[in-house]
Amino acid sequence: MEIENNNPKILLILSEKKLKGIFMSWDKILLDHGSGGRASHELIERVFVPRFQNPFLNEMNDSAVLDLKGGKLAFTTDSYVVDPIFFPGGDIGSLAVCGTVNDLAMRGAQPCYLSVGFIIEEGFPLSDLEQILVSMEKAALEAGVQIVTGDTKVVPKGAVDKIFINTSGIGLIPEGIHIAGQNAQSGDAVLVSGTLGDHGLTILSKREGLAFESSLKSDAAPLNRLVGDMLQAGLEIHVLRDPTRGGLATTLNEIAGQSRVGVEIWEEAIPIRESVAAASEILGLDPLYVANEGKLIALLPQSQAEAGLALMKKNPYGQEAAVIGEVRRENPGKVVMKTTIGGKRLVDMLTGEQLPRIC
Amino acid sequence: MEIENNNPKILLILSEKKLKGIFMSWDKILLDHGSGGRASHELIERVFVPRFQNPFLNEMNDSAVLDLKGGKLAFTTDSYVVDPIFFPGGDIGSLAVCGTVNDLAMRGAQPCYLSVGFIIEEGFPLSDLEQILVSMEKAALEAGVQIVTGDTKVVPKGAVDKIFINTSGIGLIPEGIHIAGQNAQSGDAVLVSGTLGDHGLTILSKREGLAFESSLKSDAAPLNRLVGDMLQAGLEIHVLRDPTRGGLATTLNEIAGQSRVGVEIWEEAIPIRESVAAASEILGLDPLYVANEGKLIALLPQSQAEAGLALMKKNPYGQEAAVIGEVRRENPGKVVMKTTIGGKRLVDMLTGEQLPRIC
Repeated sequence: MEIENNNPKILLILSEKKLKGIFMSWDKILLDHGSGGRASHELIERVFVPRFQNPFLNEMNDSAVLDLKGGKLAFTTDSYVVDPIFFPGGDIGSLAVCGTVNDLAMRGAQPCYLSVGFIIEEGFPLSDLEQILVSMEKAALEAGVQIVTGDTKVVPKGAVDKIFINTSGIGLIPEGIHIAGQNAQSGDAVLVSGTLGDHGLTILSKREGLAFESSLKSDAAPLNRLVGDMLQAGLEIHVLRDPTRGGLATTLNEIAGQSRVGVEIWEEAIPIRESVAAASEILGLDPLYVANEGKLIALLPQSQAEAGLALMKKNPYGQEAAVIGEVRRENPGKVVMKTTIGGKRLVDMLTGEQLPRIC
Repeated sequence: MEIENNNPKILLILSEKKLKGIFMSWDKILLDHGSGGRASHELIERVFVPRFQNPFLNEMNDSAVLDLKGGKLAFTTDSYVVDPIFFPGGDIGSLAVCGTVNDLAMRGAQPCYLSVGFIIEEGFPLSDLEQILVSMEKAALEAGVQIVTGDTKVVPKGAVDKIFINTSGIGLIPEGIHIAGQNAQSGDAVLVSGTLGDHGLTILSKREGLAFESSLKSDAAPLNRLVGDMLQAGLEIHVLRDPTRGGLATTLNEIAGQSRVGVEIWEEAIPIRESVAAASEILGLDPLYVANEGKLIALLPQSQAEAGLALMKKNPYGQEAAVIGEVRRENPGKVVMKTTIGGKRLVDMLTGEQLPRIC
């Protein structure tokens, strides 16, 4: 690659290392790659575009231009700071796509377009970045979304730990769908699409290098097709939520508060893998408070609970779905759990940070 | 504030410091504030919502739901990692709003909705966060955009330097507008809306504690009303770009490449403040390569150059606008500068990183 710039001021300030980075075939991300200049273009054209190509992104303008029919759009954003960045069942890339896809799906939207913002530490291995991009591509393909616009910043060593990713997303909400945390009604059944705690316990075990790590796997997955099937079947879904940070307990508390209803859940009905239960026991964590990245909670009229459950179980991400409780008029704003031994206890929101950098 | 959680497992894992954080009136951001649990809610409800309230955000669901007429949407994203976070003329908050508003405006879009993702270092002063939010609110108000959805992550000390902000944005493109880097035509005039290099030199001077800092000020500003005025006047704008990272030189090279045209600029026509020129000289930087955050380049037919210039000068952010060059058939893909002393030289893209963390 030739440097045509003949402005001595610019060349002067390049350290030898940086110049090497431009001349050599690089295997690490350099500050140059975030300059907005030639090295940035090289990174985008050689690494990002081949992975995510689509007519919107290929245009390489300040914004992607999307042609949409009128109607309701869902719009959401999430930053991903998970540590470690690679873990059983996924990595920060698949998480960044699935998490934002799921936030759109939780409003009943069909996810369409994602933006992606990378913040990368100087010296980050190119091979790791490529592995992350492969995961993002795979997850985007599965979810049926396109990554249409992006941004890359490179910061000096120590200013960020390895790599953070922000994804924002736009989805289309079909006519007549109105799903929100405010819509829970007394008499609704509470369904969960599968086992709880898998993601959070996997991350923590991997981070701490614990022995039971091998039996755990993150559940990170795009749930939009599962939601799509339920909507297409005409189920009258009132609330959909994915219990990420804060887990099932916090999410149900949020719904109870937003809808001013009480939620009762039944401990023995809540699906938890044995390996997750064992790891939780050892670590002193309650899986009800641990993040999930491929699970949803659905609230719909009792009369449709069985139909909803059957539909969930047909989907690869809903095979262990269960009815775990019901919405009541009593105790508005509260979540109460009927325990296995027959008692009842209040289940509050998560107080304090169980697991930093869990997603 | 009362902790109602009676799950001993959860309480056990809270360190004393963290518990204090919940009980006390806190003045620093704690890991708890990123937990997704009660402390997160407190942060959002006490700090974020009062600042950004609007019906979309107040709904507090996974995605904001927006009702849009059909048509063309612009969608963009940018992460802001500027260091220092406060500087003359702005801060990371105003930058995060203006930068994304401008990326939308550069497609001729009317910016409507922003998302915001905060990544905050544990221990970050709450008063600094509040100051940033005030700036964001002010910039959003000026630009006429609403912040409709958001996310906050808190990471342990050392995992991020202070605070990074991602904003993504959605804008509506009026019927008949088609502005893109691909549309430059031979015969177009090249206009710039004001002086160059102000933002980059301000950041660098402030960061290095240089003496001339006091005479410099970032130009960070939302340019959407300036663009709106030009479009409303019926000007046939081919290309709009804001010369941020990589500066004027890199941006013009991008346009030359995308449109396969040559761009000639005239050194003596390019507006640069004396203080910026002096600082550039001392630091060995070329202001043509330095980031701007409140300037745009417009390419439009020669015949409309005077009308365009007059319109720009009427806007508070365009008072020092100038015609600085023209688009030619010769040297496609290249930018050539006619120097003050009469010669011509090739102006390449920025090679290497002049200023990390400039925006």
